[in-house]
Amino acid sequence: MPTEIKGLNEECGVFGIFDAANASQLTYYGLHTLQHRGQEGAGIVSTDGTELYQHRDRGLLAKVFADPAELKRLKGNAAIGHVRYGTSGHNSIANVQPFLFHFHDGAVALAHNGNLTNAVTLRRELENEGAVFQSDSDTEILIHLIRKYINEGFIPALKKSLNLVHGGFAYLLLQKDRLIAALDPNGIRPLCIGRLENGAYVVASETCALDIINAQFVRDVLPGELIVIDKDGLHIDHYTTQTQLAICSMEYIYFARPDSIIHGVTVHNARKRMGKLLAKEHPVDADMVIGVPNSSLSAASGYAEESCLPYEMGLIKSQYVARTFIQPTQELRELGVQMKLSAVRGVVKGKRVVVVDDSIVRGTTSKQIVQMLKRAGAKEVHMLISSPPFKFPCFYGIDVSTRSELMAAHYSIEEMRQLIGADSLNFLSINSLIKAINVPDAGDAPNGGLTVAYFDGKYPTPLYDYEEGYRKSLSEQEQLARKG
Amino acid sequence: MPTEIKGLNEECGVFGIFDAANASQLTYYGLHTLQHRGQEGAGIVSTDGTELYQHRDRGLLAKVFADPAELKRLKGNAAIGHVRYGTSGHNSIANVQPFLFHFHDGAVALAHNGNLTNAVTLRRELENEGAVFQSDSDTEILIHLIRKYINEGFIPALKKSLNLVHGGFAYLLLQKDRLIAALDPNGIRPLCIGRLENGAYVVASETCALDIINAQFVRDVLPGELIVIDKDGLHIDHYTTQTQLAICSMEYIYFARPDSIIHGVTVHNARKRMGKLLAKEHPVDADMVIGVPNSSLSAASGYAEESCLPYEMGLIKSQYVARTFIQPTQELRELGVQMKLSAVRGVVKGKRVVVVDDSIVRGTTSKQIVQMLKRAGAKEVHMLISSPPFKFPCFYGIDVSTRSELMAAHYSIEEMRQLIGADSLNFLSINSLIKAINVPDAGDAPNGGLTVAYFDGKYPTPLYDYEEGYRKSLSEQEQLARKG
Amino acid sequence: MPTEIKGLNEECGVFGIFDAANASQLTYYGLHTLQHRGQEGAGIVSTDGTELYQHRDRGLLAKVFADPAELKRLKGNAAIGHVRYGTSGHNSIANVQPFLFHFHDGAVALAHNGNLTNAVTLRRELENEGAVFQSDSDTEILIHLIRKYINEGFIPALKKSLNLVHGGFAYLLLQKDRLIAALDPNGIRPLCIGRLENGAYVVASETCALDIINAQFVRDVLPGELIVIDKDGLHIDHYTTQTQLAICSMEYIYFARPDSIIHGVTVHNARKRMGKLLAKEHPVDADMVIGVPNSSLSAASGYAEESCLPYEMGLIKSQYVARTFIQPTQELRELGVQMKLSAVRGVVKGKRVVVVDDSIVRGTTSKQIVQMLKRAGAKEVHMLISSPPFKFPCFYGIDVSTRSELMAAHYSIEEMRQLIGADSLNFLSINSLIKAINVPDAGDAPNGGLTVAYFDGKYPTPLYDYEEGYRKSLSEQEQLARKG
Amino acid sequence: MPTEIKGLNEECGVFGIFDAANASQLTYYGLHTLQHRGQEGAGIVSTDGTELYQHRDRGLLAKVFADPAELKRLKGNAAIGHVRYGTSGHNSIANVQPFLFHFHDGAVALAHNGNLTNAVTLRRELENEGAVFQSDSDTEILIHLIRKYINEGFIPALKKSLNLVHGGFAYLLLQKDRLIAALDPNGIRPLCIGRLENGAYVVASETCALDIINAQFVRDVLPGELIVIDKDGLHIDHYTTQTQLAICSMEYIYFARPDSIIHGVTVHNARKRMGKLLAKEHPVDADMVIGVPNSSLSAASGYAEESCLPYEMGLIKSQYVARTFIQPTQELRELGVQMKLSAVRGVVKGKRVVVVDDSIVRGTTSKQIVQMLKRAGAKEVHMLISSPPFKFPCFYGIDVSTRSELMAAHYSIEEMRQLIGADSLNFLSINSLIKAINVPDAGDAPNGGLTVAYFDGKYPTPLYDYEEGYRKSLSEQEQLARKG
Repeated sequence: MPTEIKGLNEECGVFGIFDAANASQLTYYGLHTLQHRGQEGAGIVSTDGTELYQHRDRGLLAKVFADPAELKRLKGNAAIGHVRYGTSGHNSIANVQPFLFHFHDGAVALAHNGNLTNAVTLRRELENEGAVFQSDSDTEILIHLIRKYINEGFIPALKKSLNLVHGGFAYLLLQKDRLIAALDPNGIRPLCIGRLENGAYVVASETCALDIINAQFVRDVLPGELIVIDKDGLHIDHYTTQTQLAICSMEYIYFARPDSIIHGVTVHNARKRMGKLLAKEHPVDADMVIGVPNSSLSAASGYAEESCLPYEMGLIKSQYVARTFIQPTQELRELGVQMKLSAVRGVVKGKRVVVVDDSIVRGTTSKQIVQMLKRAGAKEVHMLISSPPFKFPCFYGIDVSTRSELMAAHYSIEEMRQLIGADSLNFLSINSLIKAINVPDAGDAPNGGLTVAYFDGKYPTPLYDYEEGYRKSLSEQEQLARKG
Repeated sequence: MPTEIKGLNEECGVFGIFDAANASQLTYYGLHTLQHRGQEGAGIVSTDGTELYQHRDRGLLAKVFADPAELKRLKGNAAIGHVRYGTSGHNSIANVQPFLFHFHDGAVALAHNGNLTNAVTLRRELENEGAVFQSDSDTEILIHLIRKYINEGFIPALKKSLNLVHGGFAYLLLQKDRLIAALDPNGIRPLCIGRLENGAYVVASETCALDIINAQFVRDVLPGELIVIDKDGLHIDHYTTQTQLAICSMEYIYFARPDSIIHGVTVHNARKRMGKLLAKEHPVDADMVIGVPNSSLSAASGYAEESCLPYEMGLIKSQYVARTFIQPTQELRELGVQMKLSAVRGVVKGKRVVVVDDSIVRGTTSKQIVQMLKRAGAKEVHMLISSPPFKFPCFYGIDVSTRSELMAAHYSIEEMRQLIGADSLNFLSINSLIKAINVPDAGDAPNGGLTVAYFDGKYPTPLYDYEEGYRKSLSEQEQLARKG
Repeated sequence: MPTEIKGLNEECGVFGIFDAANASQLTYYGLHTLQHRGQEGAGIVSTDGTELYQHRDRGLLAKVFADPAELKRLKGNAAIGHVRYGTSGHNSIANVQPFLFHFHDGAVALAHNGNLTNAVTLRRELENEGAVFQSDSDTEILIHLIRKYINEGFIPALKKSLNLVHGGFAYLLLQKDRLIAALDPNGIRPLCIGRLENGAYVVASETCALDIINAQFVRDVLPGELIVIDKDGLHIDHYTTQTQLAICSMEYIYFARPDSIIHGVTVHNARKRMGKLLAKEHPVDADMVIGVPNSSLSAASGYAEESCLPYEMGLIKSQYVARTFIQPTQELRELGVQMKLSAVRGVVKGKRVVVVDDSIVRGTTSKQIVQMLKRAGAKEVHMLISSPPFKFPCFYGIDVSTRSELMAAHYSIEEMRQLIGADSLNFLSINSLIKAINVPDAGDAPNGGLTVAYFDGKYPTPLYDYEEGYRKSLSEQEQLARKG
Repeated sequence: MPTEIKGLNEECGVFGIFDAANASQLTYYGLHTLQHRGQEGAGIVSTDGTELYQHRDRGLLAKVFADPAELKRLKGNAAIGHVRYGTSGHNSIANVQPFLFHFHDGAVALAHNGNLTNAVTLRRELENEGAVFQSDSDTEILIHLIRKYINEGFIPALKKSLNLVHGGFAYLLLQKDRLIAALDPNGIRPLCIGRLENGAYVVASETCALDIINAQFVRDVLPGELIVIDKDGLHIDHYTTQTQLAICSMEYIYFARPDSIIHGVTVHNARKRMGKLLAKEHPVDADMVIGVPNSSLSAASGYAEESCLPYEMGLIKSQYVARTFIQPTQELRELGVQMKLSAVRGVVKGKRVVVVDDSIVRGTTSKQIVQMLKRAGAKEVHMLISSPPFKFPCFYGIDVSTRSELMAAHYSIEEMRQLIGADSLNFLSINSLIKAINVPDAGDAPNGGLTVAYFDGKYPTPLYDYEEGYRKSLSEQEQLARKG
C-alpha cells in the first residue's frame, strides 16, 4: 500500500455504481478504500438520468471533497469515481479524472486505471485528423476514438476503439442511462463486480471497496470483457476473445490492500506465503523478524512463522503526514525518512534482526532502514525481500517506465548488499512468487496467470511506442555490464 | 497512539531545545513525533536571545506550518513547542500553546502538558485581585502567579507558583536567555532530557522526540524538579522535595509511542508483557490472535506468543483521513468506523478469533469491531483487554473527567460482553498491569510507581476542585447499583 | 464600467505582448486595467520560444495570481491574457481563458472577446465529424476548425476558419514564435495595437491597457484584419475584405473605461457629450444634477454643464466588496443595494434632483435609487438616461441575449417611469447618441459606424443560430402588445 | 476615504446595537459602511443575554465573514463590532477587536477607536502590579483598570478608569445585559447614536452606519459622556465634566465618508466649502479643475464652482485591488500607482489643469500624479491642497506619529512644489479650514471646536508618553532648519 516510503506508485483506482440512492456518497466511501492507489487527485461524476455532474481536484479525496456541498451537488443514482496518481510535471487539474465530455447527442464520463502502450501513435494519428486533446493523459484517446466511429452507434464504436488501444486498462464509462466497464485482454489491472442488497451493481478496482459499502462480491471482470449495467441489470459482453490472463504480480506484492481478494486470492494470505517461501529459500540465523510497515508486515509474519523466529515490532511508521522543508544542512535532510519510520531501540538493541521488505526500487530507503536499525543498536541486519529483483520497467500503469532508476537493473545482489549496508541480502525466486500467489483460475496461462515481466523482462504484450526506448536501454545495460 | 478509534485523548506534548542552530526546525521534527499526543493545535516559540517569535494555529502540525516561511520566521537557537488536544467547545486559537506573554521587563513563553486540579479556585482568586485571563486554559494560571510574585525575582516566583498549582503538569518555559522545565511532585506526565552531539540540551514528553533528531537520552525529569538550561549548561534544582513517583499507567497502556522509553521501560515491551500476562490470566481456545491497530498490536503479539496461537492481521487500519458527512441514512452512518478499520475476510472467515484491544472506554468501537469480524465470517470473537476495566475518571490530563461516559463504571463485565456482542470478554488484572510495566526506579512507591486510579479509584493526590463532583457521581453510582 | 450595480456584463478583455522581458508581468498589469470587462476568471499563457506556460483560475485577477510564484512560472518574452465574464451555470475552470492546446506539431493558446452567432451549428457539425470539446465556450470552435484544415498550413487554416465563424470577435492566438490577432468583419469589439519604447508590440481590448505599461498607441485593429507579430515585427494581413465598421455603441455608453480611446474617441468625452445632448433634448427644472457612480458620472457632468445646474455628489458608491447573506427578513434583503450605493442626505434633502444614469436594463436598480433618494429627503427625482431605451438583445458579446429581461422591451416610457417611481423619465435619442460618439473614421458606414441594434433591432449581421428564437420573442412581444 | 493612494490611515471604526433581532447581521452591515476606517482586521461580539460570542480575523470584513456560518454563530439581540487599522509589525489576530474577556463574574467585550497618550506608563504600572497583557494594543489597558477597581462595582470602576486613560478614545463595551459607550473629554473621535423603528438603539463611529440599516439619527455622543443602553432604554451619564470639544479636523478633510454628518456638518458639504475657500485664496488661470479620486472630488467640485472653471474627470481610480509583486525593474516598480490611478489623456491633453487634493503626507503620490498628468499631455499642472500643510504628528488615532515622514515638516512650500514637479502649489489656510467646517455646536471652543494641531502643533491635551519624543523631534527640526 503506497504513501509508503519507497517511490513506487500505482496509477489509479476506479469505482462505479448504478441504481443506488446516494450514489455519489457511496462512491466517495468506495474511493476512500482505494486511496492507496492514487493520492494526487480525485473526482466523481454522477448522473440523475438527465444530466451528468462532475467534481474533481488535485489532492487527497478528503481534501477534494472537504466541502460537503460538493458531494451533495453530485445528484443522482449512478456515479463513477477515480483516484489518481500522476507524474508531477503534468499534475494539472485537466488531468484529474473522471473526465466529462459534453456532446450535442449526450454526455460521457470516463475513468481509467492502467497505461496504454500505443498512446503516442494513436494521439498523433488522431491529431492529424483534426482532434484537439484537452489533457496529457492517455485516457482521453478512448473518447476520441469512440467519437470517430460514433456513427456506428456508441457500443459498436466503443468495441472498435477497445481493439485499437493496447496495454493495461480498466475503463469505467458513465452515460446518463448506463455504466460501462471494460478490461484489457490480459486482465493486467484488477476489476471486480459487487452487488448491494437492494440489487444495485458496483464495479471497483479492489474488493475492499465493495466491503465498505457492504456489497456482496459477484465476480472479477475477465480479460476482454465489456460489462454494461443499465436499468435492465448487468449485461456481460466481449469486445475481443483473444485473451490470456496476466495479472500484474505487483498488485499482490505491493499495491493492493491486504484485505482485497483478487482472482480468488486474499492479498494478505499471498504475502504471508511469500514470506514463508522466502524463509524456506533463505533461512537466516537471527534473533527476530521485523517487517517494514505497512506493506511488508504480512510477509514478515509469514517469514517469522516459517522460521520459528519471534515476530517483533522493530520499526514503526508515523501515521501523520511528514512534511520536510528545504533543508539547510545534511543533518536535517536525513530526518525525512525518520519522520516516517522509526526503529524501536528497546526491541532491536543488541539483536540480530531479519528485516522483511516487499521490494527494492531505488535502494535509498533500504539503506536508510539499515542505518536506522544499526544506530538503534541492532547487531546484525539481514534484508530479505519477498519478491524477485525488480529489473525491468512496467508499461502497464506503474510509475516506473525507465530502467535507469531500478537498482537491480544496474547491480548484482552482492553489490546491492554492500550499497545498502546489510549483513546479508536475499530475494524470493520468481517460481516461489508464482507459487505463493497461486491464482486458482489461471488455467494454463503462462506464469500462473501473472505478469512477472518486472523480474524477467518477458512482457505479455508487444510494447509498441515503448519498444525502441526499451531495446536501447537494454543494450546500454549490456554494454555497461560488459564494461563492469 | 491516538487518532485511534476510541474517544480517549491525551492533553498535549511538549518539546524544548536550547543552544542549537535551526532550533525551530528541530522543534518541528520533535513535535512531529509527538503528534499522537495532540492533534487539535500546534505551535512553536523561538528566541534569538533578543526577541521571542511565535507561530501557532489550530490543526495538525503539518497544516500549521504548511507555509515554510512561518518556520523560517521563528529565528534563533532556542525554542519550545507544543501539540495540543482540547475539548471542542473552546478550540479557539487563543488556547493554542505555547503562550507568549510580553512584559516591559521581558517576554515569557509557556507550554504545558497535564491538568491542574485546583485551577478554578486559583483563577477565581486571581481574577478577584484584578487578573485578566486571555484563554480558557488552566495553563495561563502559572504566568499570573509568577507575575504576582515577580518582585521576588523570576525563579523564586516560579518556585512559589509551582507549589501553588496542583495536579499533573510538565511545564516548559522559554525566556530570551534560558529554557526552564518543571514536573509535578508525582511525575504523572513523562518528561525526559536529551543532548545533541554538539552539546545542546533537549527536553521532550517522550524519547521518540530525542531519537528523530539523533539526541542521546540523558535522564528522565524527576518529580518536583526544576530544570534550568542556559548558556552555562544544565542546572537541576527542586521546587519541592515532597515527591512520590506515580506515573500515569495510561501512558504505557495507550498514549505513548511504542518506541518511547519512559522511566527505563520501552513502551512496546511493556505492552507485549501485558499481552503475555493477559494470556496467562485468560487463555482462550481459539484459532488465531489479532490486534486492534495500531495501539494494540504489541499486546496482541504478546498474547499470541504466550498462547502459542498464530498472530494474524485480521483487522487493518486505513492510513487516510476518514471524513464522513451528515448522513441521510443509518446505512451510511455505520460506514464511519468502517472507513477507519476493515476486517480481512480471507483471514478470519470460519475462524475462532481472539481480538486484543488495549482498553474499553465507551464500548461503541468494541461493539463495531465484533460486528465487523462476524460479518466477515468469524465463527467466534473473544475480546481480551490488556488493561483493567476503566471505571474512574482521570483528572491529570486525559480527556475523561466524568464517570458518565465510562462503560465499565456502569456495567458488570458480563453485561459489557453482552452489549458488545462478544463470545467472551476479559480484562488484565491491576497486579499484572503493574508487573508488566515494572518501572525499575519505582523504589517503594505504591503501585510500582504508577497511577492506577482509573481502575481502583485511589488517586495519588487530593482532587481539590473536582472532589465534590466526583463524590457525587460515586454516590449516584452506588444508588444506581442498589437499584440495578 | 462593471461591477456596477445593474446586471449588464461584458464578456471579456484580451491583452497580448510579443518580444518584451517580463511579458507575463506586463500582461498582468494590462489585464488589471481591463478587469472591468470580466471579473469571473482570469488567465495568462506565456512562451519562452520553446514551451507555452499557462495559469488560469476563477475569480478576480488579483486572486488568481495571489501567489507571485504563479506569475514567475510563466516564463518568456511573449504572452497573452484574458479576463472573463461568464454565466454562472458553466463557471467551471475549463471555461477560463486563454485556452492552451497541445499538439504533437506545436502548442497554441487562444483568447477571445465576443460571441459567435453560429456556434451551435458549427459545434454540432464538428462533433459529428469526431470533435471532442473540452469547454462550453464558443471560443474553442476556432481551434477545432483550424485543426480541421491544418494540412493547408496554420495561417491558411486560420484564415479559412475566420471566414466560417460569424458574429462579434476579437481573437488573440499565441504560438511559441508568434502572436496573432484577428477582428470580426464589423469590428464590433474594440482591439488596438501599441508599442513599447524598446519596440515590443502590444495588442489590447482598450487603450487603458497600453497606458499602464507606457506603450504608445499605434492604431486600432480594423475589421477583417489578421495581425501577425513575430521576430520580424508586425505584419498586417486580411482574412476578408468584405467589411463594414459597426462598433458596439455600448462600449462607449457603458463598458469601456472612461480613459480609453476607441477609434479616435475618448470614452469620457463621448459620455460627456451624451449628457450635454440629453440636456438639450430633455431640460428639467431642478436644483442639481447627480450621476450614478461610477459609469454615469461623465454624462452627469455633461448634463450639468449644458443645463447650468450645479453638479453634486448625491450618491456615493462603496469601494468595498458588498457581500450579502441569505436573508431572513425583507428588511435585511433591501440592504443589498444600500451596501453598494448611498444617498448623501446632506446634499439632496429638500432638493429637486436630476439623476443621470447610462442605461436601464431590468429597472430594479433605478427603482431602488429613486427610493433611496426620496428616503434621504429629495423633493423630486428626475431620471435621465444617457442612451436610448434598451429594447433588443445583444448577440455579439454582452450578457443580454433574451428580450425577456429588458424592461424597455415590455413597457412604455411612462409605464417605466411609474414602475421606477421617478417624477420624470427620459432617454437620449439614437441620433443624439450617434452624434455624441461621432466616430471620425466611420466613413459612410450606417449609424456612424456604430451598432445600435439594442435600440432599433436592426442588426449589422445575420443572426444565424439566434434568428429563430429572436423572431419568436418578437412575435410574442407583439401579441403581448396587442393584448396590453 | 482610505484605501486611498496616500499613506494616511485611520485607526478604526466601531458599531454597537442593543435589543434588535439579527443584531450581528445589522452590525455586519454597519461595519461595511465603516470599512474605510480600517481594513486590516474586523470582528463582532454578540450576546444572547447569557453568553458572549466572538468572531474576528485579519483582513477585510467580507473576507473575515466569508463563511456565513460565522455570522450565524453570533447569536443574540445585542452586538458590538470593530474594523481595525494596525501597523504591520503587530498585525496578529490577538490585536483584532472587539476583545472578549471571560471572568468568573461575567464576560466583557471591548472595542476602541482612538489612541491613548499615556498607554506606556499605565501598562508598566499595571504589569508591576501583576497584570498579564494579551495584546500590544493600548485598548486592553481599560479592562485591566476596570478589573483593578471591580470591587467598587462595574460602572464606578469604569468611570474611574476612564479618568485615568488620556488621549482620543471612543469605547464600546458589551456585557450580557447592556451596551456601553464612552467618548474622550475632547470628543476627538466621532461617535453618534441612532434608533431603529422598533426602538433598538445603535451607536456608531459615523452616521453612514445608521443610514444603511435605516436607523434615525438621535444625537452625537458628547465629550465626557458615558452612555448605557439596557432593557430599560438609553441612559446618559458622565464620567467627567471637564470637557471641551476638539474634533479631529482630519475626519472632515479626509477620513469620514462624504455622506456622514458629524456634529451637524455633512462631510461632503464641508469639503466642497474647503474647495470654494481654496479657490478664493488661491485662484489659478487654468482650463479645468480635476480632483484626485475619491476623497478629493468634493473639494475639487467646490473649487470648480467658485472659480467658474469646468470640473472634469482627468484622473480615474481603478475599483479593483491593485497587487504589485516584487519588482525586477524600476520600470515595473512605477506601475504601482498607475494600477490605482490613471490620467485621462483625452481630457487633459494640451490643457492647463488644476488638481485638487485633500492633503500631502509624504509627497510621493503627489509627485506621481503630476508626472502622470504631464505624460498624458497636460500643459500645466497646478496642485491645490484643500487643507493646510500637514506638519505635526497625530497622537489621537491617525497612523502618523512621527514628524519624520511628513513632507511639510521638512520643506518649504516652494521646495515641496519643486520636489513634486508642479507648476504651482498652494494650501488652504487654517482659518478657512475652520470656516469651511463651521461646527454649529462648537460654542466658544478654540478653533471652532476642532483639533488642528496637525497644522499648528498646538495639541488640545498634554502628550504624556509622547511628550519627550515630540520635543526632541521638534528641536532636531529646528537645528535642521538652521543648517538648511
